[in-house]
Formats: sequence, C-alpha cells, structure tokens
Amino acid sequence: MIRMSARGAVEPFHAMDVLREANVLAARGHEVLSLAVGQPSASAPSGVIAAAQHVLGNEPLGYTDALGRMESRRAIAAHYGERYDVEVPAERVALTTGSSAGFSLVFLAVSDPGGRVAITAPGYPAYRNILKALSLEAVEIETAGANGHMLTVEALEAAHRKSRLDALLVASPANPTGAVTDRRSMAALMDFCCAEGIAFISDEIYHGLRYTGDDRTALSHSQDAIVINSFSKYYCMTGWRIGWMIMPADLVRPVERLAQSLYISAPDLSQVAAPRAFECVEELEAIKDGYKANRALLMERLPQLGFSFAAPPDGAFYAWCDVSAHTNDSMDFARRMLQEIHVAAAPGLDFDPVNGHRYMRFSYAGSQATIAGALDRMGAWLKR
Amino acid sequence: MIRMSARGAVEPFHAMDVLREANVLAARGHEVLSLAVGQPSASAPSGVIAAAQHVLGNEPLGYTDALGRMESRRAIAAHYGERYDVEVPAERVALTTGSSAGFSLVFLAVSDPGGRVAITAPGYPAYRNILKALSLEAVEIETAGANGHMLTVEALEAAHRKSRLDALLVASPANPTGAVTDRRSMAALMDFCCAEGIAFISDEIYHGLRYTGDDRTALSHSQDAIVINSFSKYYCMTGWRIGWMIMPADLVRPVERLAQSLYISAPDLSQVAAPRAFECVEELEAIKDGYKANRALLMERLPQLGFSFAAPPDGAFYAWCDVSAHTNDSMDFARRMLQEIHVAAAPGLDFDPVNGHRYMRFSYAGSQATIAGALDRMGAWLKR
Repeated sequence: MIRMSARGAVEPFHAMDVLREANVLAARGHEVLSLAVGQPSASAPSGVIAAAQHVLGNEPLGYTDALGRMESRRAIAAHYGERYDVEVPAERVALTTGSSAGFSLVFLAVSDPGGRVAITAPGYPAYRNILKALSLEAVEIETAGANGHMLTVEALEAAHRKSRLDALLVASPANPTGAVTDRRSMAALMDFCCAEGIAFISDEIYHGLRYTGDDRTALSHSQDAIVINSFSKYYCMTGWRIGWMIMPADLVRPVERLAQSLYISAPDLSQVAAPRAFECVEELEAIKDGYKANRALLMERLPQLGFSFAAPPDGAFYAWCDVSAHTNDSMDFARRMLQEIHVAAAPGLDFDPVNGHRYMRFSYAGSQATIAGALDRMGAWLKR
Repeated sequence: MIRMSARGAVEPFHAMDVLREANVLAARGHEVLSLAVGQPSASAPSGVIAAAQHVLGNEPLGYTDALGRMESRRAIAAHYGERYDVEVPAERVALTTGSSAGFSLVFLAVSDPGGRVAITAPGYPAYRNILKALSLEAVEIETAGANGHMLTVEALEAAHRKSRLDALLVASPANPTGAVTDRRSMAALMDFCCAEGIAFISDEIYHGLRYTGDDRTALSHSQDAIVINSFSKYYCMTGWRIGWMIMPADLVRPVERLAQSLYISAPDLSQVAAPRAFECVEELEAIKDGYKANRALLMERLPQLGFSFAAPPDGAFYAWCDVSAHTNDSMDFARRMLQEIHVAAAPGLDFDPVNGHRYMRFSYAGSQATIAGALDRMGAWLKR
C-alpha cells in the first residue's frame, strides 16, 4: 500500500476533466461540440507539416542541447526583431516542452521552497498547481472586471508588503478573461518589480491573438523581463509541445542546468519544424479571422442567452462570462450541459477558486460551425 | 537584477555539457566521435516513422487526455502481456513526456517536501537533481563493484532506520554501470519496501538491452510497483520524448491531476506513433546486435588501454570504467580527450559525486565505426 503525498491532492484542471468526459462521449458516437479547451481546431500551418515530413524521412532525431537546437533559437531571436523590433540574442532563448516547461523552469530558477510568486485571479489554473507542486506559495491577487481585470501596482504592492514576493507572473492577453494589460499599466508593474528585486515573468502565449490593437512584448520595456511563449496558440501547435522562453543572461545557465535534468530537451521534431510557422502568417491570419467571426457571434448571442461578459474579450480566444443568471454552481452546470446537450465548456472554478462558481469560460478557438451549433443547442436547452 | 534561487544551482549534467561542447566542435567541421550520451545512433524504427508520416498528413494533433491517448495506453498494456506475461489494465498506464516526466510525476505523487527518496550511487544524475528541484532529499546509497553494484536490503534498511524513506528507486539494467539486479535481490528489496510502506519505483528504461539473460519487470513480483519506462533506448526514440509509467490504481488520479498542470499531455505525434515500435522487433534486434558487437570490442580493448571495467556490462549500453590508471580527475580527462582527439565520453562525477572522479562512462549505443574509431584515437593519444 503506497502512501499518497499531500501535493498529489492538487486541484484537477477541470477543463481537462471535461475534455476527458467529452472524449468518452465522442467515442460512444455522440457529436460533442467543445468550447472547453483552449486549443485551435486548425492543424499546424502547412509549412510546419512539410518541414516535419521532410525531417522525418531524412534526418535523425535525438536529444539536443538542453536549451534547444541553436538554429531554432536563432529563428526565435530573429522573430523578436521582425515582430517587435526588439533585439534578443539567441543565447538568451530556450526552447521548452510547451510553455508548461517554461513555467516550471523559471519558477525553479528564481525561487526556493517557501518562496512567494504572485499571480492574478482569475487566471490559468496550472500556474497555481505548478507553484504548489514546486513548494512555492501562489499569491493570488484578485482582479476586478471594473478595470478590465488588470492587476494594479497598489494591489501588487500590498501583497509584497505583506511578505516579500520572489516573482510576479502577468499574462496579457490573459486566460480566461481575454483581457489585455495596457502598455502603461504593464510598465508600472515592471518598474515596481525592478525596484523591489521581484522577477517579472510575462506570459505572452496569446500574442498574435489581439482584436483591438497590437501586442507589445515586455522586452520592449525591459530586457530583465522573463518571457514565456509557445507555438501552441496563434501557431496552432498544441499537440507538438513546443514553446520558448527569453531570459536575462544571468538566468541562462541555471535554467539550462535544471532543463538538463528535468526535461533533457524538448521534442526534436517540434524543435526543427516549429520555427517554420513564422513564415506562415497568411495562413495563420486566415485562422484568426475565424476567431474574429466566432468572437462576434459570441458577443452577440451569449448576452441574449443570459451570459454576460465579465471581461472585455480583447485577446486570446476566450469569453469569460458571468453565468449567475442560470446557476450558482458552474461546475454542475458544465457537467449537465455536457451530458444533456453534449456541449463542453470550462467551469470557472478552474480559474478562480473563490468566485469561479459564478463564471464559465467559453473558448472560441473552434470552427464557426462548432460555435454556432453550440449556441443553438444552448439556446434550446435553456428555454426548457 | 533578478535574484537566483539556490535550487537553480543544481549540478549540471556534465554528459550534456560534453554533448554541447561536442556539437560546437562538430559545427566547426571536426569529426567528433561521441561515446558520451546514452542515445542510439539509429533512427526510430521504420514502422514508427511511417505511422508518423501518415498521421502528419492526415490527422489533427492536439492536447490529449493528460494520461495519454487510450489506444496507445492499451497498446502498452498489451505489451506487458506479450513481453512479460503480466496483466496490466490500460487504466493504470500513463504516457509521459519521456521517462523524465515519469520521475517528476511519481516523486510528486508519493512524497511531500522534505521527504526522502533512496537512489543508488553510482546512478543516473537526473534522479538526484529532480529530487532536489522538488524539495526532496536524495538518499544516495553507495553500491559496490564487488557484488555487481546491486543494492542490498541491509544497506536499504540502514538508510530507512536512520530516517524514514518515502520511496526507493532501482534501475535494472542500470545507468551508468550496465549492472542488472538479479531476481532474488529485486524481490527482497520489494518485499522490504512493501512491509515498510515505502513506494517502490522500478526504472526499466533499459529493458530490451540485456546481454546475459532475460528482463523481468518488477510487476511480475508485485503490482504495487511503480514502473517507469520509455521508448528512448531499446526503441531508439530519444528525440520523440515519449515514455510511460505503470501505477497502482490509487496513484492514477493524483498522477493525472499533476500531469494536467505540469505537462498538459505528452507530444501527440509521439503518442500515436510510438506503440508501432512494438511491432518492429526484428529491426530493433538487429540494432541490438550492433550494441553486442560494440560491447565485445570495448570489453576486449578498453582493458588493453588501461581502463578496467568497474561493473559487469550485463545490460544497457554502457561501460563503467575505472580510469585511475590514467587520471584522478575524470572531468579534466574527458575535457582534454574531447578537445585533443575529439572523442566524447561522460565523466564519472555525473553519476557518483563521491567517487566519480576515478570513473568514466563509455556509451556503446553508437555505430561500430564510431566505437572502433574512438578506441583507435584513444590508443594513439594515450601512447603519447
């Protein structure tokens, strides 16, 4: 009989549990419409697929340097020049096994057991769970719909005064709200962190997916920022498990050492093929046009169904909705919706353990047929 | 200025550093012969490549259930029936991002911060580094060449009496020694763990690579064992980052929850394609015949060069040699050998911080030409 650890009792990622239940239903032949998982329905861009096909047939794959193949690190460095007009040396780029590995690596590199890392609520649940698994305290700072779910320096300062923070992680555009932190607010947060010796981690995984303006990398304000990004979202490569991080020079060697032991290296085929996605902008913008149409559809119809937007859906591909007109238990609501009409969406408790029971996240990364079909089923279901 | 964590100061994996230096030399046009990294020179079997080509062209890739695609979990479960005559339900199989992810997940699931996990020295350095990163104590128990580097129950009991152990990890065949723990010794260790409530973790990544007998999975003795395995070694798929674990039923849900947040899911293409490797035994046995020839060559010629075998090379593809006839600083020796004759091998300190300065590990997973060429260069170099 094995004794279980307390940290194995981490919260499940309910959206993934919903995905599993949805897969079971689909395997039984039901047509499940999923707005649950933050995953594009499109495949990787054709240039990526072609490169992967070529490599598979012609080149050996193997372990690489822990920080990744240098030619791919160079391609990512070049992307910062082209996309943001920011110079980043390839030596400060690491390829990671999705952004998931990036988070673990950076948390380990900047904080010791018992350390405090500030994140926002609502927010991506894996932040909290990874921090807990790594013996760190997730300091969750509530943000308010009233100011677009942006973290304020005042709230950050209050958390830091209470007990010193090792790091702050900010995502913009954010999951699950889709909210964007504006340039001035981001700069203020970064300046506070810099003055206080708090590591500033910028999760930019939803860059490329803005509907109301342009993205700006945190590196534009300071090269001390640690940037986490991935090919999963805009580049439609979730299943390839390939992301990257940009680090200050001092962090490179610690991250490399940790990566050697914890990951060895990121999937090699993904390392080679992923940077080709940078050349497939036309294809990717067409996919984004689909999200735009989905977003418009949801903005029109969700309020008609009694779901009000709790944050401006400025970026990513999420609608974060107050569902209290229908339920005070969004988990139960999500389960019933899946079982009764085979529409999957993510319950809010994933993203906000305190207030999430009143919220749900609808992903609009799927096809327009999926979104429209789901809205139709929901409309009929709620009328009953 | 970011403050670094103490745990970022984890030891580097020197074999990976050697690999990086070797890559730099190779990029400059030097013909580097590498015996440094535990990686087959052969590509994945043809059935795997063909399956991957097919999937790339025809099926979407994406996130999967955190424990992996059910059809692949079933294929691995079936492998236990065919290969070991042991029944394993697919529900207790998890696909992992290489065995690396398996180690992190199981350590997290069975031990809380400050917990003690026993491993053997010499041993795979990532065990120690992962444990440290996860706030666990790596209890390194020295094994002796005199009894084939097998851990004894007496030594295990002494460590446990000193302070309670949460888990024991045993690898057989082992890295870096190639040593195999015999059936009776393994059973005794497992029985002790069972009686004391210590989780028993069996690293079976070198199964398939025995030269003196047959492999036996720990599951043959007890279904309470936690088995970690991978497609990297026998199946020649290091760069694909795909492995698996078999768990007792109680552990499935904690591991699933942890995996959801820490990894989301293993690389999807690898998940689909890897189980095809089970059908490619003929091809893989031919590759293993090459290791056998390499092993015979090393067993003949290394002693002639003054390197004595410190363990019987019964399995895996490593020769663990006492190099004290030439040096008392195997790290410096490895560096000079790489720079002067472009032959890479792993310094012993990776595997044994206490006595490793007298040892080196030579991997014979490369081609016969690589091994023979390296031996020739070493012979000429040592004569100087």
